[in-house]
Amino acid sequence: MRWTKSFLFTMKEAPEEAESISHQLMLRTGMIKMLVSGVYSYLPFGFRALENVMGIIRQEMNAAGAQELLLPAIQPIELWQKTRRDELLGEVMLRFQDRKGRRLCLGPTHEEVITDLVSTYIQSYRDLPFTLYQIQTKFRDELRPRFGIVRACEFFMKDAYSFDKDTAGLNETYERMRSAYNNIFSRCGLTCVNLKADSGVIGGDTSHEFLVPAESGEDVFLQCQACGAALSEKDAGENATHCNAAMVKKSAMEIGHIFKLGRKYSDVFGLKYLDESGKQQPIEMGCYGIGVSRLLPAIIEQNHDADGIIWPMGVAPFKVMVLAVNVSDTEVFGTAQKIYEQVRNKNIAVLFDDRDLRAGAKFKDADLLGIPLRVTIGEKFKKEKKIEVKYRESKKVDYLDEAQFDKLLNDIR
Amino acid sequence: MRWTKSFLFTMKEAPEEAESISHQLMLRTGMIKMLVSGVYSYLPFGFRALENVMGIIRQEMNAAGAQELLLPAIQPIELWQKTRRDELLGEVMLRFQDRKGRRLCLGPTHEEVITDLVSTYIQSYRDLPFTLYQIQTKFRDELRPRFGIVRACEFFMKDAYSFDKDTAGLNETYERMRSAYNNIFSRCGLTCVNLKADSGVIGGDTSHEFLVPAESGEDVFLQCQACGAALSEKDAGENATHCNAAMVKKSAMEIGHIFKLGRKYSDVFGLKYLDESGKQQPIEMGCYGIGVSRLLPAIIEQNHDADGIIWPMGVAPFKVMVLAVNVSDTEVFGTAQKIYEQVRNKNIAVLFDDRDLRAGAKFKDADLLGIPLRVTIGEKFKKEKKIEVKYRESKKVDYLDEAQFDKLLNDIR
Repeated sequence: MRWTKSFLFTMKEAPEEAESISHQLMLRTGMIKMLVSGVYSYLPFGFRALENVMGIIRQEMNAAGAQELLLPAIQPIELWQKTRRDELLGEVMLRFQDRKGRRLCLGPTHEEVITDLVSTYIQSYRDLPFTLYQIQTKFRDELRPRFGIVRACEFFMKDAYSFDKDTAGLNETYERMRSAYNNIFSRCGLTCVNLKADSGVIGGDTSHEFLVPAESGEDVFLQCQACGAALSEKDAGENATHCNAAMVKKSAMEIGHIFKLGRKYSDVFGLKYLDESGKQQPIEMGCYGIGVSRLLPAIIEQNHDADGIIWPMGVAPFKVMVLAVNVSDTEVFGTAQKIYEQVRNKNIAVLFDDRDLRAGAKFKDADLLGIPLRVTIGEKFKKEKKIEVKYRESKKVDYLDEAQFDKLLNDIR
Repeated sequence: MRWTKSFLFTMKEAPEEAESISHQLMLRTGMIKMLVSGVYSYLPFGFRALENVMGIIRQEMNAAGAQELLLPAIQPIELWQKTRRDELLGEVMLRFQDRKGRRLCLGPTHEEVITDLVSTYIQSYRDLPFTLYQIQTKFRDELRPRFGIVRACEFFMKDAYSFDKDTAGLNETYERMRSAYNNIFSRCGLTCVNLKADSGVIGGDTSHEFLVPAESGEDVFLQCQACGAALSEKDAGENATHCNAAMVKKSAMEIGHIFKLGRKYSDVFGLKYLDESGKQQPIEMGCYGIGVSRLLPAIIEQNHDADGIIWPMGVAPFKVMVLAVNVSDTEVFGTAQKIYEQVRNKNIAVLFDDRDLRAGAKFKDADLLGIPLRVTIGEKFKKEKKIEVKYRESKKVDYLDEAQFDKLLNDIR
């Protein structure tokens, strides 16, 4: 993409509304734009990162044997009355009545819908086990939206639901999902802690949450100052020490939560199967959520410096940025353009800063946008015919000849 | 995907609710499942087709220079009052008030949001032209939902918005979008007519719609019996003849609509730019919609026979189906499994019918699902070591040796 053709606008200063570093950087890089409090548009630069995150989630969920589907956002209230979660969710759930008088809501989660749906298809043990998932827009009547898209009224979730013959099967699926989650978060450049958690309105007897330590996080956990072990406040109980060292309270952002639901929903919806001996048996369910849009601020909280974002390669909106120092110098511009085409032809997402601006402003923007590799063509190239490659993360600079540069590109995944 | 592991259930008969052939086939192949009237889940087989359609749309929109973003579904009513479309849309638009008393709606279209958004970024002629698009869930309070996902309360739209310096620029963009639409529909296996249309609540002075002739369609157009020329009812006027032959009324499904909006929205939101001489100029807009989910029934209406769906290769949920005639025959099953792995390793979406069912039922299901290539391993293979390939569309059968089969796979895109 050529910058002069793209809908990409950076800001020197973040608007006052921005409360956290990730919120500031998402606004300054033109990733998102507020429509009304808690409601955001994803602009092209932000959308590219969102799409990459979704791609990683899909790959890992599919690799773990889950199948993607898409459930409706609109749900009838009656379904929620069956599990009594109608009252439990209360005003957070957006509700409306349609012209036909139907009482509907925009479902913040889909346990009822999927259990009801699955019960019309499943007959015998031969149909089990399986896991279904979706990536979907969810809605919440959020009283206090905060930190940009971290706590918003409209956001993306990945929710998966598993169906097993017995608890042994559920336990196995649960561990497979936990390991898929670890893969997803690590590919997103996130370091997180995985703690036993409270199951809340979702229910079931066991659940684990995935937390990203971040100053602006609204969750907390305890960490041992000696060994680094993480514990939930509840599990730490009255013990203020671990390894004889003090436990420190840390802020964190919840990015995932997995639940062993057991029979909570299958009992209500009569979801059963016939076992090998022809006897009816209840189905053991699990559910697995990821706050997809929230991963972007989480990634930025953990991957930035004073100058801007430092995108991990796997989620970077562009992997390479080609910067022509002086676009009115025909040799510089021609070479930069040639290199831009070369990177593009390798199917590597590349941004070409072809703007007629002074070099300082362009370098500042490059650091702010945080694209992993910056390829600069300027005086240095004219003199020595070497391509300057700067790594955003290490700040290391390499000067490569054509063959070395080509090899570097081939190593980018 | 192995059938025994997949959430894929076929039905011999369509439920009574199904009114059109595409609706029947989508239910019988387990592509969709109704939650409440007008509200559907996409099950994995349907979701795969939807995803392929979206992939084609993205490729062609990007190739035409458009940039993807994502605007919120939730919109403030005030934005709609500015263009007076609040009244115009009336009860079709889903509205609600949130806990903070904000009057919000689920926007069925995004001219207001995008014009308002763009106006905060655009300053000069250097920022123009550009086209932005999104693929998004839209909501409608539909009084009479029909034909499954054809007329539904929740559906997918691709909506694009273009911004040009003048009408010459708009005209050029409009034609580029029209040609992108033709590419999209033809890659989806659709034959459609493109007619001048009424601009309705969207507005502007010129618009064209893309219609797919289909018996269950709710739109109509006129076609000359001699030359096949298509005309809108309005354009045909009082003339019941063309080429001296009678014009016949045909039913059709609207799948796309493109509009020259001109300054309708930019005037309301003060969207202007500074031209080369520093003078303020209004921006000329266009907008371009595709009924994304509706493409699936449209494709099926045009691509089916008495036995089931005939998927065009580009959108087929699976491109190849491997069918083991008798799974208890170890040679048959082993060979089928080997071939399944071979296809998978070439990154071709493949369904392996490994179910322990009689051959007749499996062949019927294969025809119903409509996967382009059916590879059958049975007695014939045991005797002659030839791989049977049946083409769903032509019903032609080939018997290939290993090298020929490998070549066939390499030719599949």
